[in-house]
Amino acid sequence: MKKVRIGLIGSGYIGRAHAIAYAQAPVVFTLRGQLVKAMLAETTAEYAAQQAQTLGFQRSTGDWRELVADPEIDVVDICSPNFLHKEMALAAIRHGKHVYAEKPLALNAADAREMVDAARQAGVKTLVGFNYMKNPTAKLAKEIISGGEIGDVVHFYGTHNEDYMADPLAPIHWHCFKETAGLGALGDLAAHIVNMAHYLVGDIASVCGDLQTVIGQRPKSAGSAHMAAVENEDQAHAMLRFAGGARGLIETSRIACGRKMGLSWLVTGTRGALSFTQERMAELKLFRQDDPANRQGFRTILTGPLHPDYAPFCQGAGHGIGFNDQKTVEARDLIDGIAGDAPLWPDFEEGWKVSRVLDAVALSHQDGRWVDVIEIG
Amino acid sequence: MKKVRIGLIGSGYIGRAHAIAYAQAPVVFTLRGQLVKAMLAETTAEYAAQQAQTLGFQRSTGDWRELVADPEIDVVDICSPNFLHKEMALAAIRHGKHVYAEKPLALNAADAREMVDAARQAGVKTLVGFNYMKNPTAKLAKEIISGGEIGDVVHFYGTHNEDYMADPLAPIHWHCFKETAGLGALGDLAAHIVNMAHYLVGDIASVCGDLQTVIGQRPKSAGSAHMAAVENEDQAHAMLRFAGGARGLIETSRIACGRKMGLSWLVTGTRGALSFTQERMAELKLFRQDDPANRQGFRTILTGPLHPDYAPFCQGAGHGIGFNDQKTVEARDLIDGIAGDAPLWPDFEEGWKVSRVLDAVALSHQDGRWVDVIEIG
Amino acid sequence: MKKVRIGLIGSGYIGRAHAIAYAQAPVVFTLRGQLVKAMLAETTAEYAAQQAQTLGFQRSTGDWRELVADPEIDVVDICSPNFLHKEMALAAIRHGKHVYAEKPLALNAADAREMVDAARQAGVKTLVGFNYMKNPTAKLAKEIISGGEIGDVVHFYGTHNEDYMADPLAPIHWHCFKETAGLGALGDLAAHIVNMAHYLVGDIASVCGDLQTVIGQRPKSAGSAHMAAVENEDQAHAMLRFAGGARGLIETSRIACGRKMGLSWLVTGTRGALSFTQERMAELKLFRQDDPANRQGFRTILTGPLHPDYAPFCQGAGHGIGFNDQKTVEARDLIDGIAGDAPLWPDFEEGWKVSRVLDAVALSHQDGRWVDVIEIG
Amino acid sequence: MKKVRIGLIGSGYIGRAHAIAYAQAPVVFTLRGQLVKAMLAETTAEYAAQQAQTLGFQRSTGDWRELVADPEIDVVDICSPNFLHKEMALAAIRHGKHVYAEKPLALNAADAREMVDAARQAGVKTLVGFNYMKNPTAKLAKEIISGGEIGDVVHFYGTHNEDYMADPLAPIHWHCFKETAGLGALGDLAAHIVNMAHYLVGDIASVCGDLQTVIGQRPKSAGSAHMAAVENEDQAHAMLRFAGGARGLIETSRIACGRKMGLSWLVTGTRGALSFTQERMAELKLFRQDDPANRQGFRTILTGPLHPDYAPFCQGAGHGIGFNDQKTVEARDLIDGIAGDAPLWPDFEEGWKVSRVLDAVALSHQDGRWVDVIEIG
Repeated sequence: MKKVRIGLIGSGYIGRAHAIAYAQAPVVFTLRGQLVKAMLAETTAEYAAQQAQTLGFQRSTGDWRELVADPEIDVVDICSPNFLHKEMALAAIRHGKHVYAEKPLALNAADAREMVDAARQAGVKTLVGFNYMKNPTAKLAKEIISGGEIGDVVHFYGTHNEDYMADPLAPIHWHCFKETAGLGALGDLAAHIVNMAHYLVGDIASVCGDLQTVIGQRPKSAGSAHMAAVENEDQAHAMLRFAGGARGLIETSRIACGRKMGLSWLVTGTRGALSFTQERMAELKLFRQDDPANRQGFRTILTGPLHPDYAPFCQGAGHGIGFNDQKTVEARDLIDGIAGDAPLWPDFEEGWKVSRVLDAVALSHQDGRWVDVIEIG
Repeated sequence: MKKVRIGLIGSGYIGRAHAIAYAQAPVVFTLRGQLVKAMLAETTAEYAAQQAQTLGFQRSTGDWRELVADPEIDVVDICSPNFLHKEMALAAIRHGKHVYAEKPLALNAADAREMVDAARQAGVKTLVGFNYMKNPTAKLAKEIISGGEIGDVVHFYGTHNEDYMADPLAPIHWHCFKETAGLGALGDLAAHIVNMAHYLVGDIASVCGDLQTVIGQRPKSAGSAHMAAVENEDQAHAMLRFAGGARGLIETSRIACGRKMGLSWLVTGTRGALSFTQERMAELKLFRQDDPANRQGFRTILTGPLHPDYAPFCQGAGHGIGFNDQKTVEARDLIDGIAGDAPLWPDFEEGWKVSRVLDAVALSHQDGRWVDVIEIG
Repeated sequence: MKKVRIGLIGSGYIGRAHAIAYAQAPVVFTLRGQLVKAMLAETTAEYAAQQAQTLGFQRSTGDWRELVADPEIDVVDICSPNFLHKEMALAAIRHGKHVYAEKPLALNAADAREMVDAARQAGVKTLVGFNYMKNPTAKLAKEIISGGEIGDVVHFYGTHNEDYMADPLAPIHWHCFKETAGLGALGDLAAHIVNMAHYLVGDIASVCGDLQTVIGQRPKSAGSAHMAAVENEDQAHAMLRFAGGARGLIETSRIACGRKMGLSWLVTGTRGALSFTQERMAELKLFRQDDPANRQGFRTILTGPLHPDYAPFCQGAGHGIGFNDQKTVEARDLIDGIAGDAPLWPDFEEGWKVSRVLDAVALSHQDGRWVDVIEIG
Repeated sequence: MKKVRIGLIGSGYIGRAHAIAYAQAPVVFTLRGQLVKAMLAETTAEYAAQQAQTLGFQRSTGDWRELVADPEIDVVDICSPNFLHKEMALAAIRHGKHVYAEKPLALNAADAREMVDAARQAGVKTLVGFNYMKNPTAKLAKEIISGGEIGDVVHFYGTHNEDYMADPLAPIHWHCFKETAGLGALGDLAAHIVNMAHYLVGDIASVCGDLQTVIGQRPKSAGSAHMAAVENEDQAHAMLRFAGGARGLIETSRIACGRKMGLSWLVTGTRGALSFTQERMAELKLFRQDDPANRQGFRTILTGPLHPDYAPFCQGAGHGIGFNDQKTVEARDLIDGIAGDAPLWPDFEEGWKVSRVLDAVALSHQDGRWVDVIEIG
């Protein structure tokens, strides 16, 4: 069986999730290729070695440039902070590597566009880590909508709200600076809900948005009296017009008290509706107008072996899969896409399209008007 | 005890609700005045007589002008279709009557402004039937927010979605024409959520909205093949900027499959959050950032005798009050406001302010830009 | 139209609820008889006069014996403490009155049996205030079960848990003494859930129960250091065997921290399941095994005009009816049953059958064995 | 670091879950020993080889006796059908192996007792796969109860209901026969809820139960017209008296239409309550009587990094862990217990105690009386 040798750059929060997924995937799924945890890059050689040991990678390096150039690597997996994605991806592509990158793909749509073009020219495959659409509930939702079970979509309401910066004394970090993160909550969180909107409803034609930095200054470090300015938005929302005619609203916040994992959506159609919240990631709520009028109601479907990608994890419905399991599905898609003919999605093009929507929201806010996403280029 | 003699115009859906409230209020509450169901006006004398008998009114008339001129009437209660509110209210005010009118107060803000001015000049009291803010949960929410329990409000998300026109074959009716209804879902439904936003968060400074008529034509009558054009919006949403700095989103739809009574809101503050949906009208969900970090969560408060306006209905918490009970609280407010010194709210001024916001949303949609509500005049 | 002249004995918690229902019923429903709030009896003539004024009764008396003997009374409505039900009902029956009594019908099944026999011999009609089964959700549930939509019932789990005595310092009152209340939580609360089990599943053949007094002593009055012994159970549960073959469990508690109105049930059948909790009294959850396997889930039906007894309250689904509205349906049943031919249920016979089950549970606890309810006689 | 070499017997539903856990555990946790997937036994050498390859085990065998005797094995992990647990465990113990066995530990308490005694005499460590108590929510619940946050426990209600045999045409299998499974729903499902009751509330002193086989015959194979008799219960419930004075109820069913993963419980104390359902495995609901009276309500705590055993999976609260992650915690406990000094629990003694309770329930049903669990021996 064809080997798929992975080089992981970055082993923090999300890099660990990738490693867990790589450990699980070969046992959970019958993969089309042999997943090899070949190399791990971190900021120093010493830390890289330690993390490779912990996370089960064969080799390690303190220099990511060495990793992307290594001939024994097939896929470069980028889990570094946002501002490094572009440089690393372009370097990997230059060496003919397939690239699997975390979201947001780049600091802005123009950068993302360069990455798309480079990958296309090099003929390499790409994947972006929009893991929430790998949840069986999301695939089930897609199946229900595509099958016309809720009629034509007329409205989408989506949020990705969390509270990780709700405490005004939470110290500043790279997510708060334009140079390192680009957008704030939009880039870090709303990227997921825009991807979900694309997946479930289709392309977005134009947007009108509003952004706000609520907490303007934060301590330079925990407990410090020295303050630094927050450079991007804490919360934002936008009205959407989909190319297909549906209307939509999205909301995002990193200071949403009470919301731990507020990736939620409600899709309303002419014959029904579907809703979901990641905090109850095993449930999909479906309303069907075609049920007898006096027996209608939102039904709570618990995902199980009859739904996409669930059975390999567990034979019992409603037993539950978790956050890392979404990444495991993503890892399966990666291996099967690289080793076989399966197309990879969400690819860099989708990553760019998401960035384009987010940039359009920001421009709309700046100009106080509706912006067509194609204006972004 | 001072008598408060009520003249009711209109005994359809909402007129009946008023009558039920008038029957309940004197038993449930210790009123400051003696509520007298004095007269009922309907479209014909015969129907008026029948409805007066059914709903317990002493006299009746087929001519509402007779009612508003009757010297034995203290309050004119207007439950007619929207387009008649203005004419009836102005006539009642000319006769020195206090006026209790259903929402939306008028077809547009300009008309509402005339009504406010007339009432002020005549020195009569006014009340608008925004009954959902009479729910004990709403008053409890107000108390929690005003007391600073969730900190400063940073975001408001509110909806009033229903499905009563979701069926494309539901025949057209007066709600669908500009001349009789003014706005569509905005006027019929969103008026409530804008009032709730005012009540919980404060004045709205500017808006940016989007409206859509999804089902452009409807049968002229049930089963008919003859179609008539729908003249106002089926769904709409808007971004809000509150005068106090908070941001907001509102959504409304009369074609929202699956939503029976989707008046819902989430208020997020710097120290907590509060949420509510009318479909579970006995519950308020409260999140407090000040709870110990590992014991935080939204708590479901079931309204009971310890909360505002509940105990007169029932001594048991969580036993539940219903839609008509909200109207009963409203009737209590009416009688106490007329017979005593208690101020009435939401009054015509609030009715006008709500209309102004809705008109601003419509203008914003037309112009594709943000609109300050004071532009509406 | 035939008059139905009501004499109400007792105007406390539940007596007030009856008065509210009497005020609402003629406006909400088209009754078959003319409801007359004829007379109210309280413990003193003065208090009776005051309450008659407040609650809208024509006459009053400080002596209930006068009320039951009054020739201008058709129905005696008994809202006194449990230990008085029997004496009052028998006196009313002797005077040929129809009787509407609150639950539990009597202190024990033997007393209830006497009441049934007296009513039967006198040919008077009877009704017991098991108001929760008057909720539209309950009638809808009955319709679903009777129509075979969930197949044959195999299991019933029902609770009536509240927390009104959860505070160990809540002072003792008549509910805690055998002489005035008979059983504790079983009589006060579980009576409702047993009635609901009868209504939804059918007769109970045998039971095996366990009772416990958790807080053995309570202050004689609020804040007092003098303690009195609690004579009946704070919590109890029992296993049931229904005559039709289904099995069941019931639970009751008056010290259930966190439960404000915990009348809940789950009926499981061979083709589906139904569940309900009074804290969300507008919702019924239905699971149908006949739905496509990958679209199954409990659906939340919000009661509305398409369901039994809802439309007279409101034309909008999901708008909600409240606790007092259940009593209003009960009042409608009373008037229609007395003025017309409609049978009344739950009647005294059902009241006795409920008592018999509760007594059997208590005997089972005492003997440590299963008890057939017919052993109680 | 000390190696812990595992020999897995059985690679079906639950054996796969063990293999997934073994893959994840070393990446998720910093283990105290080196986990080695040494050998896998299946029913034939060929199938064993194939499964070893799939699940990542070094060696394989078609004869479990070879595995338990292998000197290079430290722990024997028994994932075979119930009736084989005893023989395999005793054989493993004779070879001085530590034993990790799935629940129920044995077909009955007497067999379990033999296993406990053998393990104790041999001085080997044991663990039983009651994985639901490895969920962070369960540990959090334990912490809350032990810390006195809900006062003294007065009631426990627990269920483990599923619908996997709800279809009367689901073919018979080994779970339905006494010789291969022992008890029915009690052994397969209720074992978990009894373990949870022990964990959260403590030892059970006596029980009184009722069992029922609802579907007496099932097809011998899918679609077959030949029927075989079901020998054990489809549903059962029991009343419990805990040694500490609390009372309880448990319910179990394998034919519970609508319940996919109905492991649920509610613990009521004198100062609060806690509830949980596995279908929403990330949530714990907590009610605290000590909250201000007008702000009380069940709060929904989403597990996160501040709660036990969550952070190694994910840094984000509410992101969710799944069924296999519980097994991963269990695997961590196994390795740390074997390699280090950490005690293992639930051990064989707990497995025996659970069996004793279940046998007592069955005996109680047979005799129609309360049974002290010590009667079982």
